[in-house]
Amino acid sequence: MVQVAVLGASGYLGGEILRLLSFHPEFELTVIVSKSQPGRPVRELFPNLVPDAGLSTVGALGDEPVDLAFLAQPAGEAMKEVPKLLERGIKVVDLGPDYRHPSAETYRAVYGRTHEDPAHLAEAVYGLTEWYSDRIRSARLVANPGCYPTAALLGLAPLLKAGEITGPVIIDAKSGTSGAGQGTSPTTHHPEAALTVHPYGTPSHRHLPEMERILGEVGGRAPAIVFVPHLVPVVRGILCTMYPTPAPGADPAAWPRILEEAYAGSPFVHVGGTPRLAWAQGTNHCYLSVQSAGGAPVIFSVIDNLGKGGAAQAIQNANLMTGRPGDLGLRFAGFGV
Amino acid sequence: MVQVAVLGASGYLGGEILRLLSFHPEFELTVIVSKSQPGRPVRELFPNLVPDAGLSTVGALGDEPVDLAFLAQPAGEAMKEVPKLLERGIKVVDLGPDYRHPSAETYRAVYGRTHEDPAHLAEAVYGLTEWYSDRIRSARLVANPGCYPTAALLGLAPLLKAGEITGPVIIDAKSGTSGAGQGTSPTTHHPEAALTVHPYGTPSHRHLPEMERILGEVGGRAPAIVFVPHLVPVVRGILCTMYPTPAPGADPAAWPRILEEAYAGSPFVHVGGTPRLAWAQGTNHCYLSVQSAGGAPVIFSVIDNLGKGGAAQAIQNANLMTGRPGDLGLRFAGFGV
Amino acid sequence: MVQVAVLGASGYLGGEILRLLSFHPEFELTVIVSKSQPGRPVRELFPNLVPDAGLSTVGALGDEPVDLAFLAQPAGEAMKEVPKLLERGIKVVDLGPDYRHPSAETYRAVYGRTHEDPAHLAEAVYGLTEWYSDRIRSARLVANPGCYPTAALLGLAPLLKAGEITGPVIIDAKSGTSGAGQGTSPTTHHPEAALTVHPYGTPSHRHLPEMERILGEVGGRAPAIVFVPHLVPVVRGILCTMYPTPAPGADPAAWPRILEEAYAGSPFVHVGGTPRLAWAQGTNHCYLSVQSAGGAPVIFSVIDNLGKGGAAQAIQNANLMTGRPGDLGLRFAGFGV
Amino acid sequence: MVQVAVLGASGYLGGEILRLLSFHPEFELTVIVSKSQPGRPVRELFPNLVPDAGLSTVGALGDEPVDLAFLAQPAGEAMKEVPKLLERGIKVVDLGPDYRHPSAETYRAVYGRTHEDPAHLAEAVYGLTEWYSDRIRSARLVANPGCYPTAALLGLAPLLKAGEITGPVIIDAKSGTSGAGQGTSPTTHHPEAALTVHPYGTPSHRHLPEMERILGEVGGRAPAIVFVPHLVPVVRGILCTMYPTPAPGADPAAWPRILEEAYAGSPFVHVGGTPRLAWAQGTNHCYLSVQSAGGAPVIFSVIDNLGKGGAAQAIQNANLMTGRPGDLGLRFAGFGV
Repeated sequence: MVQVAVLGASGYLGGEILRLLSFHPEFELTVIVSKSQPGRPVRELFPNLVPDAGLSTVGALGDEPVDLAFLAQPAGEAMKEVPKLLERGIKVVDLGPDYRHPSAETYRAVYGRTHEDPAHLAEAVYGLTEWYSDRIRSARLVANPGCYPTAALLGLAPLLKAGEITGPVIIDAKSGTSGAGQGTSPTTHHPEAALTVHPYGTPSHRHLPEMERILGEVGGRAPAIVFVPHLVPVVRGILCTMYPTPAPGADPAAWPRILEEAYAGSPFVHVGGTPRLAWAQGTNHCYLSVQSAGGAPVIFSVIDNLGKGGAAQAIQNANLMTGRPGDLGLRFAGFGV
Repeated sequence: MVQVAVLGASGYLGGEILRLLSFHPEFELTVIVSKSQPGRPVRELFPNLVPDAGLSTVGALGDEPVDLAFLAQPAGEAMKEVPKLLERGIKVVDLGPDYRHPSAETYRAVYGRTHEDPAHLAEAVYGLTEWYSDRIRSARLVANPGCYPTAALLGLAPLLKAGEITGPVIIDAKSGTSGAGQGTSPTTHHPEAALTVHPYGTPSHRHLPEMERILGEVGGRAPAIVFVPHLVPVVRGILCTMYPTPAPGADPAAWPRILEEAYAGSPFVHVGGTPRLAWAQGTNHCYLSVQSAGGAPVIFSVIDNLGKGGAAQAIQNANLMTGRPGDLGLRFAGFGV
Repeated sequence: MVQVAVLGASGYLGGEILRLLSFHPEFELTVIVSKSQPGRPVRELFPNLVPDAGLSTVGALGDEPVDLAFLAQPAGEAMKEVPKLLERGIKVVDLGPDYRHPSAETYRAVYGRTHEDPAHLAEAVYGLTEWYSDRIRSARLVANPGCYPTAALLGLAPLLKAGEITGPVIIDAKSGTSGAGQGTSPTTHHPEAALTVHPYGTPSHRHLPEMERILGEVGGRAPAIVFVPHLVPVVRGILCTMYPTPAPGADPAAWPRILEEAYAGSPFVHVGGTPRLAWAQGTNHCYLSVQSAGGAPVIFSVIDNLGKGGAAQAIQNANLMTGRPGDLGLRFAGFGV
Repeated sequence: MVQVAVLGASGYLGGEILRLLSFHPEFELTVIVSKSQPGRPVRELFPNLVPDAGLSTVGALGDEPVDLAFLAQPAGEAMKEVPKLLERGIKVVDLGPDYRHPSAETYRAVYGRTHEDPAHLAEAVYGLTEWYSDRIRSARLVANPGCYPTAALLGLAPLLKAGEITGPVIIDAKSGTSGAGQGTSPTTHHPEAALTVHPYGTPSHRHLPEMERILGEVGGRAPAIVFVPHLVPVVRGILCTMYPTPAPGADPAAWPRILEEAYAGSPFVHVGGTPRLAWAQGTNHCYLSVQSAGGAPVIFSVIDNLGKGGAAQAIQNANLMTGRPGDLGLRFAGFGV
């Protein structure tokens, strides 16, 4: 058994990690840390977490024996914790953005604050599991991708690597409102959110540099990306509708096969059909599809923003980091309805 | 391993059984029967059912080795299958209504057709697990309760048995639209359903006699019930708001304790708080609460109509019928959001 | 033309008054007061209010010529304004609760604060238009009813007056989330609100004493009421499902006729069918229905909480107070979908 | 008063015309024709249509005095009616697709059937009011645009005409489910539709040739269009997120001003902010916005698919055809929530 801690447990991503751990046969939840809600029984914070009902949060990690920690904190918190955790020999999966960029300058440019732990930036492995599994297996520190980058990159990376697409790539993303987090706001106030499709994130969303960086790494050169996220009145799930520019000589009819081959070894990425958000909800699955509209190829990618786009991929990464098969505790089906 | 068959697999309840079997460590899915959709790969019917993606439906059960069958067919179908299944030594959990009433006369009165297998009516055990577990353990044939009766009975039965309530009991039920099944109708057409709360089932819903019968069995005497179901614009989940008449000398302040004691042995029934449908979605959990309004006691009960109100309770029953702990493969947490 | 002012314009009820005034042929919007948002163009606060796009809010009413003021402020604000307005000869429709109870003691008991204008409490007329139209016509000050009381009273009052019902009356109410107002809260955060039906208001909702008072006035004696409101994931609309106790000798088969006769003179109250929230959205209409469940009579009442339950009824009352037909500017149809 | 008839009254567009006529001061509803539902009181078909409650449908138009007819029938029906109506001197606004293309060949290619009234194709005026008002004023026959073309063209046409954009133009459209019409289908079954964003219409949606034709007419040359519509879980409203290719030398910073100038004379088209579907619901308004994403210009356009995208624009056209101001009976505000 792996002893795991969850830091930042009171938000949606923290709650989702706790929930997914209830399916996991070899991760034992040892400590639940919530700075903002210390000393609270889990049953009060998350009445849905019945299997963990006997546990309570603590305000800070003590000297409990912990093998691996999931960090589900706001931007800027993880960089305060990671040095201490690594020093204690605790492996870390960080679900926040602090370690997604190898450069402290980029971090400051994107997140508007100085990075306090630049020493570990280079060591952090980007946790897009299907693309970095070898490095993840030996990593001490994994930076879990953002939800939009996960959805977009899984669909684009194989085609970019195969030289089939170039920029500009237009990514018209639709996300459920849980992606906005637990904090209330006018935008996610039900009377406002339930009746509209809300574009936001212009002129530049924080996930854009992350996508550009990884696509550059995968394809040798980052294509120009036009990224417009929208909130839609569902709770969980992201659909990215993606309009890439085919490279000269590209053969879009071959794209489904390219995607299938890229993910032939993964139990989580599926190609074909018209994907539905419900299939992915609560799971680590990603559904991809290539279709043609007006003669141009369109790529659809569906995940659960809290699942493959967050907590489930974090567990997939933790599986690899602890020498386990990536799908341990994650190989279950999503809702049909 | 128990070899299981699912008959009537193409509807929502059938799909949910298949989905929940993907979590189960000891039930092996052997045959999937769909009269209406024979010879179809599971991945076409239910793209969410990734773990079963290699299977296909058949039009009828052959001579496959099967230990237990789940029947998720429309009313009137199970009674054609059950005699053959029992003769082959196959245990049956029927999710439809054919065996919920011990009398063929009642069946005709409620469902408007003649029962074709009256011989097995008396043998069938009503599958409200927390109340009939002893009989379920030794049953060959279990009649899984309806979704509304499951929600209502779990909240009312302990109080009726304790002599705390009498009739009339008003049950104002709110159900997600998946309870209406897979068949399209104007009532569940999205433009109609999304904007309203739709009362239906007056003057008498088919689940009413079922509730009356079990309450009579539990409490010695069936209280009068006024039952008004409503469709609400969510997909999964039932909330029953119940207004019982306190018996003379009743002490509503003690009701939470009475409920807790009644379900002290069950990992699935919880008491307290203000229950949310999301907690129950996809699970076998039931959330009960007793509150006071205008001086009168009100009981809230929340389940997933497809979960504890259908497929999950069917698996709980199958666990008991095959000598396993009731919570095997079911002890996971529901969504928080 | 009547010169009207709206005070407290920045909330949902204020916005709805402004919207409905865009249909009104004889009310001219002269001043829009918003303490919290002074000096803001209407087009910024309410981009939907195209016809008023040239106007801006002011922080306080000046010496503009005003005949009638709509007050859509939080509890406790109207009682500071009303004495000044009445002194200036300005008629007032208050959409808040400050003048709904004739006694300052009741106000303190229900709203937890001391009333600062007890002198005008006795003069205020309760603005349930169909029941108090004569008094409203000559009133200087009308206290517009709460949304739940409007829905419940329109269905119950005629039957209570006719001696057909007695207590207890169970009112299971379902409200759209706009009824919770513009302020954000965890309960109305979309990821929480969209997936559940949320009972609240126990043990005692502030609208309960209001319903009791008016039913007592109409029927000679207030019946006991058990009132449980629920938030449902729609934005606009209230459905009250009401379970009254029939009086000895009552004839529920006659109730539809009694309701029809009570509202024969009103173009806004309709009897029959199974009412849908969408029919009422944005309008002053109320849809009533009497059905039978398990042998007991059930009354359904549907309104828009912001319409007949708020801004539209306020305009209906203002019509009468200024010598106009009640339906002026309000006689249009609601959405079908 | 203009005597108007509505043919095809039982669908959503027909119902919306009837509803909007309840606001209109100079159009008198004389005949309501429904082939499929003849002899039905309006109050049964559309309980929301209170002002028309005394009317009933007829199965076919008789010799009633009619000045103008709205046709809201399925494709292929209008071309049977139009010759007879024109011969009687009745002006026609056709909300279906039969007269949107001047060529019978195009009609056959797009709609898969032979046109039965080619003689009137050339005469029909395309009813995108803001662009063809002069021709509409003198037209006997107006072909009302499709909902998607209305939203897209209002945003694109001024920029194409100004030489600011070229192809390809990517149109990622999100539509409420009422756009799919009144007929039930698995795609619009609430349990399926409520949880997903459903892309459809690939490889080629029927509205694509319509957009290409008009853009070609406006701009001299039709740009290539990639059009991917999606159903989103709202009932009314379309958001088009549009990614045009700026022409060489284009100045996207000037686009808002170009749009404002193009619609300076229209009370219905507004530029700026981040448009919400609720603002447009039930109205003839269109909300446009230009924003920048990743350095590229993005155009947002919001309408109600049943309003400006259907019934309201039909009334706007009828106003012009009968010598009235275009906004007569339409100048009211939409919902804020």
